[in-house]
Amino acid sequence: MAPTTETLTAERILEATEEVLRRHGPAKATVVDVARALGVSHGSVYRHFRTKAALREAVTKRWLDRTSGELSGIVATEGDPEARLRDWLGALFAAKRRKAGDDPELFATYMVLTGETGTAVGEHITDLTAQLARIIEAGVESGCFAGTTDAEKTARAVFDATGRFHDPRYAREWEEPGIEADFAAVLDLVVRGLRP
Amino acid sequence: MAPTTETLTAERILEATEEVLRRHGPAKATVVDVARALGVSHGSVYRHFRTKAALREAVTKRWLDRTSGELSGIVATEGDPEARLRDWLGALFAAKRRKAGDDPELFATYMVLTGETGTAVGEHITDLTAQLARIIEAGVESGCFAGTTDAEKTARAVFDATGRFHDPRYAREWEEPGIEADFAAVLDLVVRGLRP
Repeated sequence: MAPTTETLTAERILEATEEVLRRHGPAKATVVDVARALGVSHGSVYRHFRTKAALREAVTKRWLDRTSGELSGIVATEGDPEARLRDWLGALFAAKRRKAGDDPELFATYMVLTGETGTAVGEHITDLTAQLARIIEAGVESGCFAGTTDAEKTARAVFDATGRFHDPRYAREWEEPGIEADFAAVLDLVVRGLRP
Repeated sequence: MAPTTETLTAERILEATEEVLRRHGPAKATVVDVARALGVSHGSVYRHFRTKAALREAVTKRWLDRTSGELSGIVATEGDPEARLRDWLGALFAAKRRKAGDDPELFATYMVLTGETGTAVGEHITDLTAQLARIIEAGVESGCFAGTTDAEKTARAVFDATGRFHDPRYAREWEEPGIEADFAAVLDLVVRGLRP
């Protein structure tokens, strides 16, 4: 086996896939395109990702996981759960906004990909609401949030209620004047709704 | 002036425009298409709508106004403001869902049209949040909602927080199982957020 193939990890393939997508748009990123970019045979790529669909789903998941990874640090901190909830929702808005604003073409590409793969977005929302649920549970324990029989359900309500500030469908509105004030108003409404 | 022209009201033109759109999709509904459907000269239509853009904007506004019209009845009722707020948001969700579900092609056509005209959607949101603000003001007066210095801003926060249940961008999710439970959870969160 050639040295190139030996070091061909899934992560290296996904990096190359993102690069192919960045350069050539959502129509590209087939197994063959990626193998060519890496200078390996397509058989080597197939050993990691058995279909074009699997490759595209994996690169989409990786992109979405970057956001959940950033946010998980906020969940893990100690300190006032209400402040943590505000930080977390603010960080989610900031992360999505950065993704949409810093590299609009790659963002548009990933919008096409998330539309293709049914499961990646669903799992991403499950990850995010699970993080939110942990903050809400901490708030219920400390008494700063009202008791809930179902923290996951409450978390989903908070996630839905703040959708305008993280759902990519609204990306075009994120640079409009007044969006920060709108976000602050929804955040206040939601936090008041969680209090006992 | 021929009798046909004498009775050619803006409303009749808009009815015919919607019919043309229903049959032929968003690319149609030019002044000429509509004149042909009505059996009148395009000059007669131009007397009411000076450009294709004006005609398309007017028919979009009429379609959006139908929803605001339905909801205004709820604002005008007496009775508990919290119940009125729940009724109003429930009726908004139901109206949008009906529009999307009963005639998906016409709905898709209007989605194209709302994307074209900058002002119609903005005015629609202003109408709706003004209705919400009146209910919130009634709640502040009766003491069931917390005092607010800016009922319009609070209304916009309530409108944003419930977006998943009225914004056409989510239309595909409105027939999914669990959507009613998700709506109820957001509604409870929002109502709790408004209480003193």
